[in-house]
Amino acid sequence: MIDQLVEKIRKTGAPIVVGLDPQMKFIPDEVKDPVFDEMGETLEAAGEILFRFNKKIVDATCDLIPAVKPQIAMYERFGIPGLEAFRKTVDYCKGKDLIVIGDVKRGDIGSTSAAYADAHLGRVMVGDREHKAFDEDFATVNPYLGSDGVVPFLKICDEQDKGIFVLVKTSNPSSGEFQDRMVMLNNGEARPLYEIVAEKVDEWASDPKLVGESGYSEVGAVVGATYPEMGKVLRRIMPKSYILVPGYGAQGGKGKDLVNFFNEDGLGAIVNSSRGIIAAYKSEPYCDKYSPEDFADASRAAVKAMKKDIKEALG
Amino acid sequence: MIDQLVEKIRKTGAPIVVGLDPQMKFIPDEVKDPVFDEMGETLEAAGEILFRFNKKIVDATCDLIPAVKPQIAMYERFGIPGLEAFRKTVDYCKGKDLIVIGDVKRGDIGSTSAAYADAHLGRVMVGDREHKAFDEDFATVNPYLGSDGVVPFLKICDEQDKGIFVLVKTSNPSSGEFQDRMVMLNNGEARPLYEIVAEKVDEWASDPKLVGESGYSEVGAVVGATYPEMGKVLRRIMPKSYILVPGYGAQGGKGKDLVNFFNEDGLGAIVNSSRGIIAAYKSEPYCDKYSPEDFADASRAAVKAMKKDIKEALG
Repeated sequence: MIDQLVEKIRKTGAPIVVGLDPQMKFIPDEVKDPVFDEMGETLEAAGEILFRFNKKIVDATCDLIPAVKPQIAMYERFGIPGLEAFRKTVDYCKGKDLIVIGDVKRGDIGSTSAAYADAHLGRVMVGDREHKAFDEDFATVNPYLGSDGVVPFLKICDEQDKGIFVLVKTSNPSSGEFQDRMVMLNNGEARPLYEIVAEKVDEWASDPKLVGESGYSEVGAVVGATYPEMGKVLRRIMPKSYILVPGYGAQGGKGKDLVNFFNEDGLGAIVNSSRGIIAAYKSEPYCDKYSPEDFADASRAAVKAMKKDIKEALG
Repeated sequence: MIDQLVEKIRKTGAPIVVGLDPQMKFIPDEVKDPVFDEMGETLEAAGEILFRFNKKIVDATCDLIPAVKPQIAMYERFGIPGLEAFRKTVDYCKGKDLIVIGDVKRGDIGSTSAAYADAHLGRVMVGDREHKAFDEDFATVNPYLGSDGVVPFLKICDEQDKGIFVLVKTSNPSSGEFQDRMVMLNNGEARPLYEIVAEKVDEWASDPKLVGESGYSEVGAVVGATYPEMGKVLRRIMPKSYILVPGYGAQGGKGKDLVNFFNEDGLGAIVNSSRGIIAAYKSEPYCDKYSPEDFADASRAAVKAMKKDIKEALG
């Protein structure tokens, strides 16, 4: 799957992923009202609204981008109908030839991680019949439980040609509380925990079964745009891993901060923007030019601007 | 919610939680076949089978125990119909007056953790109407992202009278890979990461708004039965936190290993067993005495044996 992602990034010239993280407050009344009229203020209506909103954004941007990253929490919040909208969003995006990164941040003990891997990347048997549950192309994985929690995902990546991005250094302000702690090594040196996690990611990524023809591995890493200096070090520690970079735009990361995450060939990283794209119509400079009903056009303009910003930064 | 849990533990005399983590291979054909006949080998059938299996276990054990802990991954594996079975299981158990600990291990950046907190412990607005998505009583939370990822849960715990258990030291063999790393402190000392996380848990737990009449906090911790020595230290670091102890039984933890997790009053910990209870009919000593169709009776016997084992260990 990583080779397909690299190929699509090359073709679109856009190392960009659009975060489909809809919140009700981002969604214009023009989308919400007809659904409320039809279905009432129900969870089913909420699911339908999320899906319709996503569909418009995807239709308006799918020719410009290689991938989308739906954040499952934004759907799980609305229970079963919300998760139904997540599943429909995954399917719709795949139908539009986009790569889908399920931002699920799952991770547990072995047998439980195996169940999550089945749910999001693999297949599941019911009697003698095989089914797919959510069937994203990539999933994000939390490493706190160690190898036990990650290895079941690696197995599925190999069997089903899928990929993962392991959380290494997250974009949020308090990510340093544990991730930046200085860890003592046997040789007396000390290094931050995120580097220790990154070394483990590199070990997982280096399994020859998981390295594609592009030279990149099915095992990538999440490193926040908000920590560019750390990105520089982490890029070196995990040479085979694609880096998924959240935190651009609304969280404060800028184009020039991104250089460190890329290799010299302009590959090696894919930058996520969620709010900055999907809610572009609500903020400068788009709010002056686009009315709420043209929200998808504003998203398209924001994708183009992001593409330009990154291109200029990479030089 | 912690006061209700403590009260129920006192009433049943059983600091025990049954892990409702059904896997198809644990479920007798007597449960599966009629559903397959009716619904085919579909995801819907899988969901129905999980729910029927859980129902029998719950009916057979609910008078003996204070709480259950469904592991959502085992349901998520079967997609939407699986998650529907999770939701129905939560509701059914609450109807039986059991406390429900959603083992979801969620955790993300702030706005995303807020969505997970809404999904599992809170409420969500659709237009002007309030809904509940999954509505467990407690949820497990992954701390890797730091305070940002936990604080939204604390807010909901306060508002909705709910609780969380934060992963501190997990029961799996590779939990030490990151959790046991020695972290350098400013004073030159070094301490394992799980202790650093535990100190943070104690800080969260100490918010007076979250401490109940029992003296325990809505903020508990997960510490694996498989690491009793660490349990001793962690019990001291987090005096106000209930400790949820997985790893008893099938993962290797024994009654005598559990003493360290409890306070002298016999409170302060609740021990989970999943496979050892729900699949008791498949292993010694129950397999000789119970046929597969009597699986729920075997589970009841296993709960009684576990209760006795813990009681003897606590002396």
